[in-house]
Amino acid sequence: MDGGGETKTKDVGQLGRVTIRTVAAHSGVSVAAVSKVLRNAYGVSDNLRNKVTASIDALGYRPSRSARGLRGRTFTIGVLLIDIANPFLPQVIAGVNGVLAPSNIRAMIGVGQAETQLETSLIESMIDYKMDGVILVAPRLPSDVIATFARDIPIVVVGYHDPGAQNFDTVNCDDEAGAALAVQALLAQGLSDIGMLTVEQKVCYDVSVVQQRERGYRDAMAAAGLAKQARLHRLPENFATHDAALSAFLDDPERPAAVFCWSDLDAIPLLNLAAARGIGVPDQLAIIGYDNSPLGALNLISLSSVDQDGQGLGALATETLLSRIEGRKAALHLKIPPSLVLRRSAG
Amino acid sequence: MDGGGETKTKDVGQLGRVTIRTVAAHSGVSVAAVSKVLRNAYGVSDNLRNKVTASIDALGYRPSRSARGLRGRTFTIGVLLIDIANPFLPQVIAGVNGVLAPSNIRAMIGVGQAETQLETSLIESMIDYKMDGVILVAPRLPSDVIATFARDIPIVVVGYHDPGAQNFDTVNCDDEAGAALAVQALLAQGLSDIGMLTVEQKVCYDVSVVQQRERGYRDAMAAAGLAKQARLHRLPENFATHDAALSAFLDDPERPAAVFCWSDLDAIPLLNLAAARGIGVPDQLAIIGYDNSPLGALNLISLSSVDQDGQGLGALATETLLSRIEGRKAALHLKIPPSLVLRRSAG
Repeated sequence: MDGGGETKTKDVGQLGRVTIRTVAAHSGVSVAAVSKVLRNAYGVSDNLRNKVTASIDALGYRPSRSARGLRGRTFTIGVLLIDIANPFLPQVIAGVNGVLAPSNIRAMIGVGQAETQLETSLIESMIDYKMDGVILVAPRLPSDVIATFARDIPIVVVGYHDPGAQNFDTVNCDDEAGAALAVQALLAQGLSDIGMLTVEQKVCYDVSVVQQRERGYRDAMAAAGLAKQARLHRLPENFATHDAALSAFLDDPERPAAVFCWSDLDAIPLLNLAAARGIGVPDQLAIIGYDNSPLGALNLISLSSVDQDGQGLGALATETLLSRIEGRKAALHLKIPPSLVLRRSAG
Repeated sequence: MDGGGETKTKDVGQLGRVTIRTVAAHSGVSVAAVSKVLRNAYGVSDNLRNKVTASIDALGYRPSRSARGLRGRTFTIGVLLIDIANPFLPQVIAGVNGVLAPSNIRAMIGVGQAETQLETSLIESMIDYKMDGVILVAPRLPSDVIATFARDIPIVVVGYHDPGAQNFDTVNCDDEAGAALAVQALLAQGLSDIGMLTVEQKVCYDVSVVQQRERGYRDAMAAAGLAKQARLHRLPENFATHDAALSAFLDDPERPAAVFCWSDLDAIPLLNLAAARGIGVPDQLAIIGYDNSPLGALNLISLSSVDQDGQGLGALATETLLSRIEGRKAALHLKIPPSLVLRRSAG
């Protein structure tokens, strides 16, 4: 068949006729070479990529269906998010999509809403769909359950601290170090009465970013000789009640002079409620959040925050997953360093 | 097999042994009845649902794999989002998940980033995966392309005005009415020098919410005898340049006294930039946005905005898709009414 004339117009009725073999023949390379380009494998030369991409365009080739039959791969990875309303998560997805863009691999996202049963059923769907691998972001599943799933599908977990896991990888920002950055910045401003606003997490607390940030806070306070002054103010698990809990924190005459808040999800409402009460920020209450969400950068908000580089996390998790899909067996447990962005709320 | 003893512990190695027939036998109802409960079909009694759900729990039944073989359904629907950083979209997903929660149907999300080729490839993946149907949110695909896909999979499109489409459904908020609400509120405050900030959209402009909102704005101005004063300030398609364009709008001495902005995505940065310039809002510039994003409700922002009920849209789109999956052929083109939330930016 001569596909040279078919370029832009996609005729759905003809799908499936052009195979990876047709592409290989058209571009004058092996099927294995086309496959390498399709999965954006390491070591593909620009020359090979250009040649194969030109043939794919000329033939109107769709790898997703045709290649599956030949290679058993679906060129899709699953991403399980805890939520999509948290502005940190779009950054992670941008990192995932950035790595996948030059390949023919696509991401499909499930939203698990921190519900164990929903997460389980979404991962099972991704396995059933024979996705090539999955990235789990802050799942509420115990390590042994993830390890069981990892027998069926390559798994990388983000925002989940389990450095002993044997058959899946973890990619995290160093949450202890992030908390320490926040405490040290407040200390450097002459503040010592520093509290932490954190959140109750009943499920998977031991592997959570929450626990790591609490530990980083306590250790940094202890290192400054302030172990006894360290105070955790724990918000309830149910987010719908947080406005009331944050208001109670602000209205407590014993509240600290500065607060490190586990997430911008609470730090921004806190800052907003403080303004409504006429509490001067940072003079009466200095605030540092976590996630450096785009919102906090608005001049009207101007929230200091720890940046865990969501896009970098998403990109690294994707690269790690691709290398596992390619056959790596030894588990990797990677951490990237956080940074601190100071703005008016503690500046 | 006696599955009565298997309750909570999920043994991945045993998956697939319990079938829809086992569940039917265990609960003493027909396979068709179990199937109805699984897909949350209309007309299922609480009694039937409770009986079947109890059996599903007792047997540890997983419909996703087993039921597929029997019925050709995967109990998954695809959702194509233009983006996930827009805070309106989590509301739509919450609506989708709210309708699906009591069923065993799950949603898988693809993010098309307003790129035609990526959108096409994600929809093709959803078709290849034999998803039961798809919801497309503000796709950048022409109607005839969507109609072609609709031959292969039930489709509902949200944020896409194509009331003549024959083989797919559309679900929208009434964007013309929303724009009119904003203009009328500003008129009621004694303002008549009302401009509109809108955005360039080169692809699919004719079916877009942007065009509808522009039309609603013009018509409402004309209805007030202000047709000649109506002015569109069009921001470039590339969002990375919007801060500069919004600044230029604010710095223009000819700027209007009030502005209706096509989306909170631009209205919030506009309000922020105005504050940084010392431009009094609403006295020197009244602002009404669109989408009523949660952020605008913060006291520090206090943005007036048209609420298109994202959660309601997501829920209605899902119900519409389920009825199409159940066999409805005639296209539905549904609109829900918007409302206006007035806050300090125009209050």
